Amino acid sequence: MPAKQSMMYEGKAKKVFLTEDPTLVIVEYKDDATAFNGQKKAQIAGKGELNNKIASVFFRMLQTKGIPTHYVDTLSDREMLVKKVSIVPLEVVVRNIAAGSLAQRLGWEEGRVLPKTVVEFYYKSDELGDPLVNTSHIDVLELATHEQLVQIEELGRQINIHLKSFLADKNLLLVDFKLEFGVDEEGNLLLADEISPDTCRFWDADTKEKLDKDRFRRDLGSVEEAYEEILRRLGGFTL
Amino acid sequence: MPAKQSMMYEGKAKKVFLTEDPTLVIVEYKDDATAFNGQKKAQIAGKGELNNKIASVFFRMLQTKGIPTHYVDTLSDREMLVKKVSIVPLEVVVRNIAAGSLAQRLGWEEGRVLPKTVVEFYYKSDELGDPLVNTSHIDVLELATHEQLVQIEELGRQINIHLKSFLADKNLLLVDFKLEFGVDEEGNLLLADEISPDTCRFWDADTKEKLDKDRFRRDLGSVEEAYEEILRRLGGFTL
Repeated sequence: MPAKQSMMYEGKAKKVFLTEDPTLVIVEYKDDATAFNGQKKAQIAGKGELNNKIASVFFRMLQTKGIPTHYVDTLSDREMLVKKVSIVPLEVVVRNIAAGSLAQRLGWEEGRVLPKTVVEFYYKSDELGDPLVNTSHIDVLELATHEQLVQIEELGRQINIHLKSFLADKNLLLVDFKLEFGVDEEGNLLLADEISPDTCRFWDADTKEKLDKDRFRRDLGSVEEAYEEILRRLGGFTL
Repeated sequence: MPAKQSMMYEGKAKKVFLTEDPTLVIVEYKDDATAFNGQKKAQIAGKGELNNKIASVFFRMLQTKGIPTHYVDTLSDREMLVKKVSIVPLEVVVRNIAAGSLAQRLGWEEGRVLPKTVVEFYYKSDELGDPLVNTSHIDVLELATHEQLVQIEELGRQINIHLKSFLADKNLLLVDFKLEFGVDEEGNLLLADEISPDTCRFWDADTKEKLDKDRFRRDLGSVEEAYEEILRRLGGFTL
C-alpha cells in the first residue's frame, strides 16, 4: 500500500497527500461539512468514511461503463488512492429535476421534472462565490479549451445516464449532481473529486425523502442516517 | 403617417401602440428611467426624445449593413414606426470590456479589455430579476429554438462589429450593450427594442468618461447631458 507523504492540499471535505509515486495521490475524506460557500460549518460523525465508501462504489461502477476516472483503489475507511490530476476549475452540474438554485433561477417549483437534462458550469472560486458561467466566460477566463468543454459536457451527460439507471434500481431519484474533472500528466481528461451525498441530490423514489446534504443545508436532521441509508442501498462497501 | 390606435403595451421606458396596419406598431419613447430591476426610478428630461433619435441613427446604420431590424421610420421626436414582432424573452448582452455584472462575475476590474467578445443571455423576467441563463436553461424554458439561438448570437456578434467601428469614428468605446430580438408574422428574426445609452455602455475613448445610463445608476450626475453628447457625436438626427 502506497505511503502517505506530505499534504499537498486541504479542501473543505478532503485532504490530499502526495505518495512516493508522482502520478498518484491519496485522498482522505473528512467529517467536515460546509454549505453556502463555507458560511455554514459543522462536523458530521462518520461522513468521511461514508463518502469514501459511497464514492468508491460509484467510481467502480462508472469505470465498468468505460468512464475515465481518477479512481485507483480504496485504501482504508477514509482513504482513496487516485491519479494525480490538475483540476479544471469548473463545477459541472447536471440536473434531472428542478431543485436548489435552478428552481430559483427558472422560477420552477422544486421537484418538477426537467423535460431535458440541464448542464451548468460554475467557476470554482470561493472569492466570487462560484458564479454560473457560460461558454464565452469560460473562454475569456481560459478555464478550459473548447475541446475539453465539449468532452466534459458529453462525459457529464453519459455519467448522468449511468448513475440514474444504477440508482433507479435502488429506488433512488438522481435529482442533480456536481462533478469535477482533472487532466493527468498525459493530458487525459478524468472524472475527479467525489460522487457522494455531499455532491448529489438523492431522493427516495416513492416518498421523495431527501437523502443528501440538503438535510444539513436545510437543518432537516438525521444527516448521518441519510448517508448511511445511501451506502446501505448501494449494497455497502467492503475493503 | 400611420395613426396611433390603442396602447398595446407599456414598458419601463416605452409605450407601444397599435396602428391601422396590423403588421406595424408605433413606439413612443418615455422620459422614465429605471435601474436595478425597477428599484430605482426617476424622470430624465428629454431622454425619450434623445433615445428615439439615437436609436434611429443606429437602426438606419445597421440596416445599411444588412442587419434585419424592426425599424421602419422615425415619425416624430418621440415616436418610431416599427414592425410588429413577438419578442423573444431573452436579453442578449454583448461585451467588449469588463464592466457592471461581468466585472463582478469574473472578478475583473472594470475597464479591462476582454480578450474575446462575451455573449450572454438573460431570461427576461422581472419577477426573477432577469437571471443569466445558458443554452440548456433556454432549451428547458423553450425561450427560443436552437436555430434561433444560433442566429441571435451570430447577429449579436455582427451588430457588435458594426457598432464598434461606427462608434470608434466618433471617439467612443462600446463597452457592452443589450439587444432584444423579435419574430415577425412571417417568422423572420429581427433586431427589436432600442439601441441607446439606456441599453449600451459608451465611454469616451480618451477620458473613459461614462456617457450612458451608468450616470443614472451610479448617481454620477449630468445624465441628460451625456445622452445629448452621444446624439451630438452621432451627427444629430433630423426628422
